[in-house]
Amino acid sequence: MARFQINILGCGSAKPSTRHLPSCQVVDYRDRLLMIDCGEGAQQAMCRQRLNFSRLTDIFISHLHGDHFLGLPGLLATLSLQGRGGSINVHLPAEGMEVLRSFVGWTCRDFGYDIRWNALAIEQQTVLDLPGMTVEAFPLYHRVPCLGYIFREKPKQRHLRGDMAKWLEIPVAQLRAIKEGADYVKEDGTVVPNALLTTDADPSVSYAYCSDTMMDPRVAEAVKGVDTLYHEATYLSDLEASARERGHSTAQQAGIIARMAGVRQLIIGHYSQRYRDVTVLVEEAKREFECVLAADEGMKIDLL
Amino acid sequence: MARFQINILGCGSAKPSTRHLPSCQVVDYRDRLLMIDCGEGAQQAMCRQRLNFSRLTDIFISHLHGDHFLGLPGLLATLSLQGRGGSINVHLPAEGMEVLRSFVGWTCRDFGYDIRWNALAIEQQTVLDLPGMTVEAFPLYHRVPCLGYIFREKPKQRHLRGDMAKWLEIPVAQLRAIKEGADYVKEDGTVVPNALLTTDADPSVSYAYCSDTMMDPRVAEAVKGVDTLYHEATYLSDLEASARERGHSTAQQAGIIARMAGVRQLIIGHYSQRYRDVTVLVEEAKREFECVLAADEGMKIDLL
Repeated sequence: MARFQINILGCGSAKPSTRHLPSCQVVDYRDRLLMIDCGEGAQQAMCRQRLNFSRLTDIFISHLHGDHFLGLPGLLATLSLQGRGGSINVHLPAEGMEVLRSFVGWTCRDFGYDIRWNALAIEQQTVLDLPGMTVEAFPLYHRVPCLGYIFREKPKQRHLRGDMAKWLEIPVAQLRAIKEGADYVKEDGTVVPNALLTTDADPSVSYAYCSDTMMDPRVAEAVKGVDTLYHEATYLSDLEASARERGHSTAQQAGIIARMAGVRQLIIGHYSQRYRDVTVLVEEAKREFECVLAADEGMKIDLL
Repeated sequence: MARFQINILGCGSAKPSTRHLPSCQVVDYRDRLLMIDCGEGAQQAMCRQRLNFSRLTDIFISHLHGDHFLGLPGLLATLSLQGRGGSINVHLPAEGMEVLRSFVGWTCRDFGYDIRWNALAIEQQTVLDLPGMTVEAFPLYHRVPCLGYIFREKPKQRHLRGDMAKWLEIPVAQLRAIKEGADYVKEDGTVVPNALLTTDADPSVSYAYCSDTMMDPRVAEAVKGVDTLYHEATYLSDLEASARERGHSTAQQAGIIARMAGVRQLIIGHYSQRYRDVTVLVEEAKREFECVLAADEGMKIDLL
């Protein structure tokens, strides 16, 4: 059974609190774990949420503010302590990468595996091409160079109608092409249209991560039509001016972006520590967009 | 009321677990908080244990292995976010300090306060001289340059016998000298010995922190006579050979050091994540030394 699950490891903002950890999520897709941001405490949260370190292949860092990457040196050192071999990919904005890279190299001097640093420009691009999924990056609008990421399942094969395949005695060698949309041409030249041979493919699911960013219509454009959108909602609207000044969004703005992008559901997070109860943020976002979930540590969201 | 309290924020070792955090303690002394080691998650633990960041004046790092300092960049950045002014002192072994310092400077570019980096040689020395307390460093024996720390109350004043002071009509100006041990000389030249004027001072309390280290009699010598000793006990004795190889101690060895040093009580910690229940470590240490406490996150030990 295919799996596409979002695990929330941390959804607070920079100031520490007893309620939330700094930003970290893990996308559990098929045999891989793909981490998005790696705030302090990420490795501890992985233990708590029983996410197996050995399945982690890629880490995507949105930007180089401490609450989004300070868990990285410890996590990478732990992988080494655990005897990890092979390699791990760290995708991140190019600016500042060298400082982080040399610090990580100094923190743990005997890595038994390769860290592949993938320095990214702040532009729309495909970062990773996996069987069944691509990961794309796109610009966010924060105080420092910042990227959002979209995890997008590739189009799936159409379902073969077994009864038709059997009746027409279609050779096995041709089934794949038919599942990909081809018609079937019988030996006598008769064309059987694909629509008679197959039913619609399952929908391809996609997940977009937008943190940290001020509200910008270009974000809505970049994530247009994704299934599930995580968008930061650091403040309530009464702090809209300071949100913009600090490169952040309000809950209302997160709702507006979700509506503009036409997504199915919105997850909000990156809460300022000033909100003891995030229900007020959810309520504000819901005034703009109906389906809003509040991220919380330990939460799992199944997209398939 | 004077306060001298040890707060355990983390007492695990390098590999993360769901049971313990990496090394961090806070000595709460009078109006100050003094942190010892700063593993990942220290700032979050401070919130949880309601330790007020604004009272933190000094951080003592034992050595530059990740599980003892990776919480530092985030903690220092948070102090800046909180609008801290003035300064904070970071005491640490000289080797590697520059890498850490430049990383911290890059992590948070707009510090509103001074970080005073105090690079220490690996030798016996007084690191800090406070009203009522000194902090001394001394060598530990690990795989990298490593320091232990002793928090030692200065000798206290003797208690004045109010009845005698009143009867002899001792001038107020002379009371301080008497509390410090002086005799009283009456106007007619008669000497009243201090022993008639005062009772014994309260004992001065001391606390020693030893992590990480292999067992070494020089450690027992350095901490001789302290009141409370924290000594690492990473493994049980069946792993004594690998403990030594990795620069660590067993619980039995921690007990031996406590006995050799003649301390009042021993706190063990820095547990390997292999031990689900640390009772076995306490029992092993108790075979060598009677009064053993197992450190645990959230624990407070009042020394006064």
